[in-house]
Amino acid sequence: MAQDTVMLAYSGGLDTSCILKWLKLKGHRVIAYVADLGQGEDLAQIRRNAEVTGADGVVIDDLRRELVTDYIFPALRGRALYENRYLLGTSLARPVIASHQVAAARAHGATAVAHGATGKGNDQVRFELTYKALAPELRVIAPWKDPEFLARFQGRSDLIRYAREQGIDIPVTLEKPYSTDANLLHKSYESGVLEDPDHRPAAEIFTVCVDPRRAPDEETLVELELVDGTPVRAADLTLGRSETDPLALFELLNAAGARNGIGRVDMVENRFVGIKSRGCYETPGGTLLHEALRDLEGLCMDREVLRLRDLLAQRFADAIYNGFWFSPEMAVLRVALDKCAEGVTGTVRLALYKGNVMPAGRSSPVALYDQRLSSMDVEGGFSQTDSQGFIRIHAIRLMAHARVARLRGK
Amino acid sequence: MAQDTVMLAYSGGLDTSCILKWLKLKGHRVIAYVADLGQGEDLAQIRRNAEVTGADGVVIDDLRRELVTDYIFPALRGRALYENRYLLGTSLARPVIASHQVAAARAHGATAVAHGATGKGNDQVRFELTYKALAPELRVIAPWKDPEFLARFQGRSDLIRYAREQGIDIPVTLEKPYSTDANLLHKSYESGVLEDPDHRPAAEIFTVCVDPRRAPDEETLVELELVDGTPVRAADLTLGRSETDPLALFELLNAAGARNGIGRVDMVENRFVGIKSRGCYETPGGTLLHEALRDLEGLCMDREVLRLRDLLAQRFADAIYNGFWFSPEMAVLRVALDKCAEGVTGTVRLALYKGNVMPAGRSSPVALYDQRLSSMDVEGGFSQTDSQGFIRIHAIRLMAHARVARLRGK
Amino acid sequence: MAQDTVMLAYSGGLDTSCILKWLKLKGHRVIAYVADLGQGEDLAQIRRNAEVTGADGVVIDDLRRELVTDYIFPALRGRALYENRYLLGTSLARPVIASHQVAAARAHGATAVAHGATGKGNDQVRFELTYKALAPELRVIAPWKDPEFLARFQGRSDLIRYAREQGIDIPVTLEKPYSTDANLLHKSYESGVLEDPDHRPAAEIFTVCVDPRRAPDEETLVELELVDGTPVRAADLTLGRSETDPLALFELLNAAGARNGIGRVDMVENRFVGIKSRGCYETPGGTLLHEALRDLEGLCMDREVLRLRDLLAQRFADAIYNGFWFSPEMAVLRVALDKCAEGVTGTVRLALYKGNVMPAGRSSPVALYDQRLSSMDVEGGFSQTDSQGFIRIHAIRLMAHARVARLRGK
Amino acid sequence: MAQDTVMLAYSGGLDTSCILKWLKLKGHRVIAYVADLGQGEDLAQIRRNAEVTGADGVVIDDLRRELVTDYIFPALRGRALYENRYLLGTSLARPVIASHQVAAARAHGATAVAHGATGKGNDQVRFELTYKALAPELRVIAPWKDPEFLARFQGRSDLIRYAREQGIDIPVTLEKPYSTDANLLHKSYESGVLEDPDHRPAAEIFTVCVDPRRAPDEETLVELELVDGTPVRAADLTLGRSETDPLALFELLNAAGARNGIGRVDMVENRFVGIKSRGCYETPGGTLLHEALRDLEGLCMDREVLRLRDLLAQRFADAIYNGFWFSPEMAVLRVALDKCAEGVTGTVRLALYKGNVMPAGRSSPVALYDQRLSSMDVEGGFSQTDSQGFIRIHAIRLMAHARVARLRGK
Repeated sequence: MAQDTVMLAYSGGLDTSCILKWLKLKGHRVIAYVADLGQGEDLAQIRRNAEVTGADGVVIDDLRRELVTDYIFPALRGRALYENRYLLGTSLARPVIASHQVAAARAHGATAVAHGATGKGNDQVRFELTYKALAPELRVIAPWKDPEFLARFQGRSDLIRYAREQGIDIPVTLEKPYSTDANLLHKSYESGVLEDPDHRPAAEIFTVCVDPRRAPDEETLVELELVDGTPVRAADLTLGRSETDPLALFELLNAAGARNGIGRVDMVENRFVGIKSRGCYETPGGTLLHEALRDLEGLCMDREVLRLRDLLAQRFADAIYNGFWFSPEMAVLRVALDKCAEGVTGTVRLALYKGNVMPAGRSSPVALYDQRLSSMDVEGGFSQTDSQGFIRIHAIRLMAHARVARLRGK
Repeated sequence: MAQDTVMLAYSGGLDTSCILKWLKLKGHRVIAYVADLGQGEDLAQIRRNAEVTGADGVVIDDLRRELVTDYIFPALRGRALYENRYLLGTSLARPVIASHQVAAARAHGATAVAHGATGKGNDQVRFELTYKALAPELRVIAPWKDPEFLARFQGRSDLIRYAREQGIDIPVTLEKPYSTDANLLHKSYESGVLEDPDHRPAAEIFTVCVDPRRAPDEETLVELELVDGTPVRAADLTLGRSETDPLALFELLNAAGARNGIGRVDMVENRFVGIKSRGCYETPGGTLLHEALRDLEGLCMDREVLRLRDLLAQRFADAIYNGFWFSPEMAVLRVALDKCAEGVTGTVRLALYKGNVMPAGRSSPVALYDQRLSSMDVEGGFSQTDSQGFIRIHAIRLMAHARVARLRGK
Repeated sequence: MAQDTVMLAYSGGLDTSCILKWLKLKGHRVIAYVADLGQGEDLAQIRRNAEVTGADGVVIDDLRRELVTDYIFPALRGRALYENRYLLGTSLARPVIASHQVAAARAHGATAVAHGATGKGNDQVRFELTYKALAPELRVIAPWKDPEFLARFQGRSDLIRYAREQGIDIPVTLEKPYSTDANLLHKSYESGVLEDPDHRPAAEIFTVCVDPRRAPDEETLVELELVDGTPVRAADLTLGRSETDPLALFELLNAAGARNGIGRVDMVENRFVGIKSRGCYETPGGTLLHEALRDLEGLCMDREVLRLRDLLAQRFADAIYNGFWFSPEMAVLRVALDKCAEGVTGTVRLALYKGNVMPAGRSSPVALYDQRLSSMDVEGGFSQTDSQGFIRIHAIRLMAHARVARLRGK
Repeated sequence: MAQDTVMLAYSGGLDTSCILKWLKLKGHRVIAYVADLGQGEDLAQIRRNAEVTGADGVVIDDLRRELVTDYIFPALRGRALYENRYLLGTSLARPVIASHQVAAARAHGATAVAHGATGKGNDQVRFELTYKALAPELRVIAPWKDPEFLARFQGRSDLIRYAREQGIDIPVTLEKPYSTDANLLHKSYESGVLEDPDHRPAAEIFTVCVDPRRAPDEETLVELELVDGTPVRAADLTLGRSETDPLALFELLNAAGARNGIGRVDMVENRFVGIKSRGCYETPGGTLLHEALRDLEGLCMDREVLRLRDLLAQRFADAIYNGFWFSPEMAVLRVALDKCAEGVTGTVRLALYKGNVMPAGRSSPVALYDQRLSSMDVEGGFSQTDSQGFIRIHAIRLMAHARVARLRGK
């Protein structure tokens, strides 16, 4: 019987290495699928590891640009902020990977896709909903939900033992008492010692941003230019550098943010599977972009559009977090949120200082802000007596209610 | 004919001093109504000024405790944050003042209430909607919307000239090129040079909080204990002080925040009257409390309750900002938001450092967070295979949509 | 080993009879739990059937009054209408049953609860979430999700064969080509021939309401008196009958509605498990009450409270439909929706005629409606010139946007 | 001095005739602007009346097709239903008129636009916000808010006297004790005797639809075909007629609905200016279209898209009702709602009978409904055991809450 082929999302870490071997030993052809999302690892080494572990093929896709232009920018433009704090670094990466993994599966004649996400987390949902939405014909292999696999591997130590037995070469940072995930947008830290929400993470664990206390004593000035909510230029005024290419400008923002200790979050969040969990994140460039957009919206976004946007942004963040990037509701959310961002065009200067991001001026050729109208000194296009009617009419409802409340003895 | 009596909201500043005199000259009896909201001014001096300017009486109410317990705490508990940034320091103060001004008017037989807010701003709405909701029988005198007054006073310089002519003693900070409003919760800065949103405010204008760059080089640790979303104890661990009285604990938080440069906001916001305006705010203690609550909610608030709360919090913030504190919708919002906050009980430690507020541990005797359940290592009360069904069922909708989208050629 | 006891939600129909026998044969003690919700069946006969089929005990609870006062009235008061059409007749019945089944389980020392709902529908969720919320220590037995049971019973004919083999006496309406569920609030019809959404149900299948075409040629007038959104009196003016007891007044409304063909719905709805399904419903009294409340809200509910209510009512309906009656979000929704309904007090007359419900007059001692203010002829407490300011201020935003849109070439 | 020209929205009724004359006597050139929206009046007669009353010109635009395709269809597609009942017949007509009136003003060199809406109603807002959004340079003349006009005309009798004095020929239905507004979508009835909400309107006042009691004893079958939420064919199966032209199909629906007494509403609604008012409406074709769309959505619209749509539809209805057709938020709402309607494609049959609209079958080539999946008998693409995991995971949150609620003694 011909072997079936499995396209495995492969990171080169302990879990997916063991899974690769385990799938091989169960008789599958296994192709390792590796996505370059700017996680800063040695891809050639990952390829070699996959091959040594037994992969029948390795596919490496550079998805960094797509991650920035098709996921990060739309998410920030729509002000996706999960539970008001988390910029969705991992959540956005999963559909990028899974959609290309599915394409690779089809290109290589695979009949199944596999991933190494656990059965308690969010990533399994993001991987599998993307698989189902884009390629329902592919079988999904999720070893961490397979009773046989679970029986064999009950914890990290079982994986390590298996890796040793099978001659899998894992750079043993085994003692690292928490797990991480990294890409261009962020690095996350969770589980292990971080599972105690009363435990403050040690300064050393954070590897992306400098500790605010060790950041420069002088402000860094960054300038961002946006068109319809999308960044088109970023400049580090302190370093005197400027970029217009999406990937390059995002990396410039990451560097400036990281240098100044910007973008750390430590929170207890609600997973889609009904569990609360504690996560720590570092999101330097994304935080700068988020703050710049928010600031420019003040100048350029209509008040009622902002209200609609805030309403939709909550659902947008939830849909992204919960794995519904490829879904009918996402199509509605994206078209609406992009419409909201139209006209958010202009330039924002941010001052970065030891963990702080402070607006340092914003301007727009299409500002809705009108200094003359706003001024308390000038009457500018506004008859103050109009306010009288405005207020009186708003008071009608309140007076009717007050009258009735008295009747009702309230 | 008997003179009618006007109860004037009086701050002792240039505007209300001129208004007091102007109302007197128009033949009214005028009582100056002064609210102590912790604005940090010399109330005895304000009383003398009112008397010298011609007030027929002066009423001074200490409303600080009520501001904290009945306005600030409920607003923070309901996570009121106007346009995602502004903690509503001025918005909350207006209904406190106006409701007591109305009570004073009744107690002193006044037939009218007056205020010095302009016809372009939000405060006029907040004053007048409160008047109308609580005492529709009182006449409202708003000189800045009175054509006669407006004809006479076209700007600040007219007021200064009038004050000099009338012998009104104003501590002439006339050259201060912006205006401010202060109370226990915050100090605001707007208009004048700040009307240019591209102009970054000079460090010197901020008088509440130290500049982050001049804040201590060591973290300050603050600990907050909350019951059902309401603070019951605050401790400055660095100073070794602790308070349980609402007013005292809020002042402790203000001091700790101010010392560390916490709580500055610089934004362009949308006024209720349809104008965009630029405001700068300093809200040290409120920011600490807001962050502590947000953090503890992670541990204690159910996910779906949080979703409802976030939906309602937007409307709550709008209602407060727009002057609808005394309104039928506010009654609904408050009962719902207080219900949401039930069970947000526990202790949060915050680390303050040069403008940053960082969580440094949180715990709760009634946490919904369950470390065993959350753990990626332990199976704890969760069958990982359950996730399979969970995901498959969520995928049904997506697969149906994908099938139809192909039919529709999308 | 001592036998464990299972408390089985038992309707006396084919499914639960077979399940009872099957559980017995697997060695459990089984107590049949029967809820009287006004489904109009012979409870004595159901008891005998249970006993003959082998039940070790039968518990029959009359839950009709509780269904009306604690479920139907709150749901209608909060305007729960699933997908804008379905009054949630089955959804409300499930938590009533399940909560009392759990109490019975505890009272009788049962260690498990069982139900006969299928694995594709909504009822399984409603039963099991109630079990889990109220008694997580009880084991849940759901045969229609048990692989062994499913292997044995692949369809209705397997059940019928089993019933015959086991001597279970089922009133064989086996040829009825659809399934139904009934209680005081409604009767539902689904599956079988109704699974084709293009198939119009034959007039004969509906057994609660008369066909509109055979309803009386004269209107029936009904009068409802409500206090804070809750009915306190209902009168059938045509029959000259009036009731104030909650159960009696609801039955009066049911009778009046049914006589006039009121309350049929035929829709395709979205199940919680991601499947669309077609349901037909008859809800006579509930429809009358819903219409009366909606009508009285026009007179008594503040506009902004109505907006909040409509926002919350959608989530309320979803929570009920999806089985979250006992949940933290429901506590928030109920307190908020009850607050919204405060002051919805007055009298509504409805004219019923061949399927139509038409308002025929409404009045309230605490109406917010003010005829003098509303009148186009009288100026009544409203200065028409106030509208000028009101409109001009609303136009500011639009003019700013129009100016900028021209700049942006839109 | 050259006379300025006023473009007056002119209906030929008492109010606008008097206004025309009054403006003339005040020295303006006045052009009467008449929109044909299918109100069923004699336009030639209206032209003659305008000329006789002194108009310097008359512009008559046939806007019926635009009303149907650009206003009614988008509004229905987005399920705009004000306060859950009113299909916005008048609200949609105002921006059509005002936008063309503005164009006519520009074409004829007018410097002002005028309308005859009162200062207490909604129409003034709809007219004036459209004027301001589209042509802020035009002066707005609203006599019913002009103190001089108001002083002269304090009620209907003053207008009648003035008309007689000035030789204005008004078809004196002066005794009609209520006012009406009609167009293709609806006819409204309000004020006068209808201001008492306890007064049921006499059957005779309704002139569009037959009284349900006098409607045919047999059902009329209507079939509607929709593509992406927009009707493309309507057939009256009983009459054997079919139309595909938007205007013709809408008129066919109007005729079928009117013949069967469909689409009457009697409600107390909330005006934008804070007043409650009572309105009665007849909307035959719009009601049929609304019901057909709602029914087809069941088959074709994704559940989560429906949730988003319902959320947005409330705001859409409010924006239309309040006069914000030309606004930035409307642009967002329309793009989002049109996206929601994509795929709502298929055929719906409706049975009309004495005021009732009943679905009589629906089908779609792109239905999300899947009979095999939905069936309770067939397992069809659904593993019933998946539900177990689905429910268990939803229960995690509830169990955590229950555990904590016990700790909290709740």
